[in-house]
Amino acid sequence: MSTTATDSPSRPKRLVILGSTGSIGTQTLDVVRAHPHRFQVIGLACGSNCDLLSRQIREFDAPLACVRDIDPAVDDWPAGTERLPYPDGMAQMAALREADIVVVATVGDAGFRPTESALRAGNNVALASKEMLVMGGGLFRKLADSSGAEILPIDSEHSAIWQCLVGEASDSIRRLILTASGGPFRTWEATAIRTATAEEALEHPNWDMGAKITIDSASLLNKGLEIIEAHWLFQVPYSAITVVVHPESIVHSMVEFHDGSIKAQLGVPDMRLPIQYAIGFPDRLPESHAPLDIRTLARLNFEQPDERRFPLLAAARAAGAAGGTAPATLCGADDAATAWFIQGDGRFGVMTDAVQAAMDAIPPAPLDDLGAALAAHRRGFDFVQARLADA
Amino acid sequence: MSTTATDSPSRPKRLVILGSTGSIGTQTLDVVRAHPHRFQVIGLACGSNCDLLSRQIREFDAPLACVRDIDPAVDDWPAGTERLPYPDGMAQMAALREADIVVVATVGDAGFRPTESALRAGNNVALASKEMLVMGGGLFRKLADSSGAEILPIDSEHSAIWQCLVGEASDSIRRLILTASGGPFRTWEATAIRTATAEEALEHPNWDMGAKITIDSASLLNKGLEIIEAHWLFQVPYSAITVVVHPESIVHSMVEFHDGSIKAQLGVPDMRLPIQYAIGFPDRLPESHAPLDIRTLARLNFEQPDERRFPLLAAARAAGAAGGTAPATLCGADDAATAWFIQGDGRFGVMTDAVQAAMDAIPPAPLDDLGAALAAHRRGFDFVQARLADA
Repeated sequence: MSTTATDSPSRPKRLVILGSTGSIGTQTLDVVRAHPHRFQVIGLACGSNCDLLSRQIREFDAPLACVRDIDPAVDDWPAGTERLPYPDGMAQMAALREADIVVVATVGDAGFRPTESALRAGNNVALASKEMLVMGGGLFRKLADSSGAEILPIDSEHSAIWQCLVGEASDSIRRLILTASGGPFRTWEATAIRTATAEEALEHPNWDMGAKITIDSASLLNKGLEIIEAHWLFQVPYSAITVVVHPESIVHSMVEFHDGSIKAQLGVPDMRLPIQYAIGFPDRLPESHAPLDIRTLARLNFEQPDERRFPLLAAARAAGAAGGTAPATLCGADDAATAWFIQGDGRFGVMTDAVQAAMDAIPPAPLDDLGAALAAHRRGFDFVQARLADA
Repeated sequence: MSTTATDSPSRPKRLVILGSTGSIGTQTLDVVRAHPHRFQVIGLACGSNCDLLSRQIREFDAPLACVRDIDPAVDDWPAGTERLPYPDGMAQMAALREADIVVVATVGDAGFRPTESALRAGNNVALASKEMLVMGGGLFRKLADSSGAEILPIDSEHSAIWQCLVGEASDSIRRLILTASGGPFRTWEATAIRTATAEEALEHPNWDMGAKITIDSASLLNKGLEIIEAHWLFQVPYSAITVVVHPESIVHSMVEFHDGSIKAQLGVPDMRLPIQYAIGFPDRLPESHAPLDIRTLARLNFEQPDERRFPLLAAARAAGAAGGTAPATLCGADDAATAWFIQGDGRFGVMTDAVQAAMDAIPPAPLDDLGAALAAHRRGFDFVQARLADA
């Protein structure tokens, strides 16, 4: 990833946005709307929200679009916009020579092929989907390195690290320090966490997120996956990536350098800031959201994460260190476990035990291609689903 | 100031250290000692500690040295080291073509002429003496800009800002945020502060510093002077420099960018870190001091400074905004006021009133040359001394 600022572009940056009707997709378009002279949308894709997609195409005058589920009720596909077939159209847009940045904000595994296609073509990819790097990080890193493309983070923690690294030499990094809110169970006893219900786990203190990621935040697995992401984004060994619990979620992450200096990035918990940083880099664009007034902060708390109470944090680190398909298996296991937990009346500890059991049972394989990652995901998913069917 | 990292130097950096036997001087030599292949000492100067200077000359094999007060008891001036006459020898060393950095860590006004001489010659200056930039900032900035020399800070707050600005475009700065410990009177009522004694003011919570700077820290004048320094170092308007009280002194300062993102630099309160950063830049050298373990931090507190209880903070900002010789007058007034306070049994409020009275009475003049700054300093000093003689 580039950490050197260069001259501002003289023409608008051309964006392809995959997953444009989801939370990150619509916030990306908020940023585009706030800076109309800086960006031009040349491709949009979504799963099923045809109505919103159609409005986006009109507002941003997108020449290309792609949708998975055509809605017959929305029959006014905008004239002048070419509808590409799903799913190949996404990979096709991602590889466009005209694209400056491909924003991958898709759900599940829909973004894999387009991300591969973009990186192979040398297009920069701004990644919002955690699973991309966790499951396919080794492959994507290799593709990016050989084509010269950049993989840019648009989640708040990795954006913070990126911002702290700008202008710094990579060999001066001692440690990346990811901050974690600690989730709803931060102060709970181990036994209370194990018997917690989905309702209790879904109370996230700071960020308004989807149910699955909120559960992952309660187990700290989310933070464990971010360790794996950080490894691939910044090419730092696992031993040099650490986590600190910071309940206020104001310090988004930090970097410690080998002279003992630590740099931190702070801001309001608003995804538009990291989105804007990723698509605007190297320029910092004027904000399109409320700023943080540091003087109104009363205090910032920091504490060590407790891997005894939150065993999936350690499980994720172990999966990253094991390498190969282990992180993909972890994602699959967690997908099945969280789905079971959210929909049922099961206990939190049963869910985390199932994920751990999958990791104990399924040995990692080499990550030869995306097919290997998807197969490992399926094995993890099936293992946990079978186990929890009897729970 | 450069905020772009370039290649490491292939030869040691050659240092001239003025004030080598004081606190910053000896810590600068600690850093040199820890990194013997990175630095070469080519000149040393001190006021009166001939014994230590003589040992420093031997240890670091310095070819040139200069001392104000020759001590007849130290008669073994090292052979092979040329003793230059005081004070011209300091300016002569500062302008050496061979010098890569001139560290100015002198006391009082001894550093003025050497700093001027270094900048005129195009030599980079690492400034530890606050008074240099406060009193002569406008002149030094002009000299540096015309010769291409850099003025590098080696106090912790400005080093923090510099570190946060590395790799960032200067037009993306919204605000510099200087942190202040708040001093011993942070939680005191206004009337209690006004009647405080020198003994009470000399209890600084975090940094072990000299008496004068500790009093300035208690009045927050110290932070006000740092606002003026920041203005000249980073060329940011006074309206965009703010202060936040942070009692733990872990966050050394911050920068807010116009996209709403804030970057902060954190570290242990050890002057060797900013010294090392300044003389090692763009390289971050491995630390020669204990690191900060962020995970052992319990909490960081932030609060707004109260200019009603600490009126000299506002006085310093006003002096900076008034420009010309006003900051020099302020330094002179404060020098006299703190000397009176430290040596006598006077009250804190009498001291701060005297400084304010000097600023009200003495109009600023244009800062045409260093002579004007020194004359303004003298006027401020004399005004306060006369006023407090009757107190």
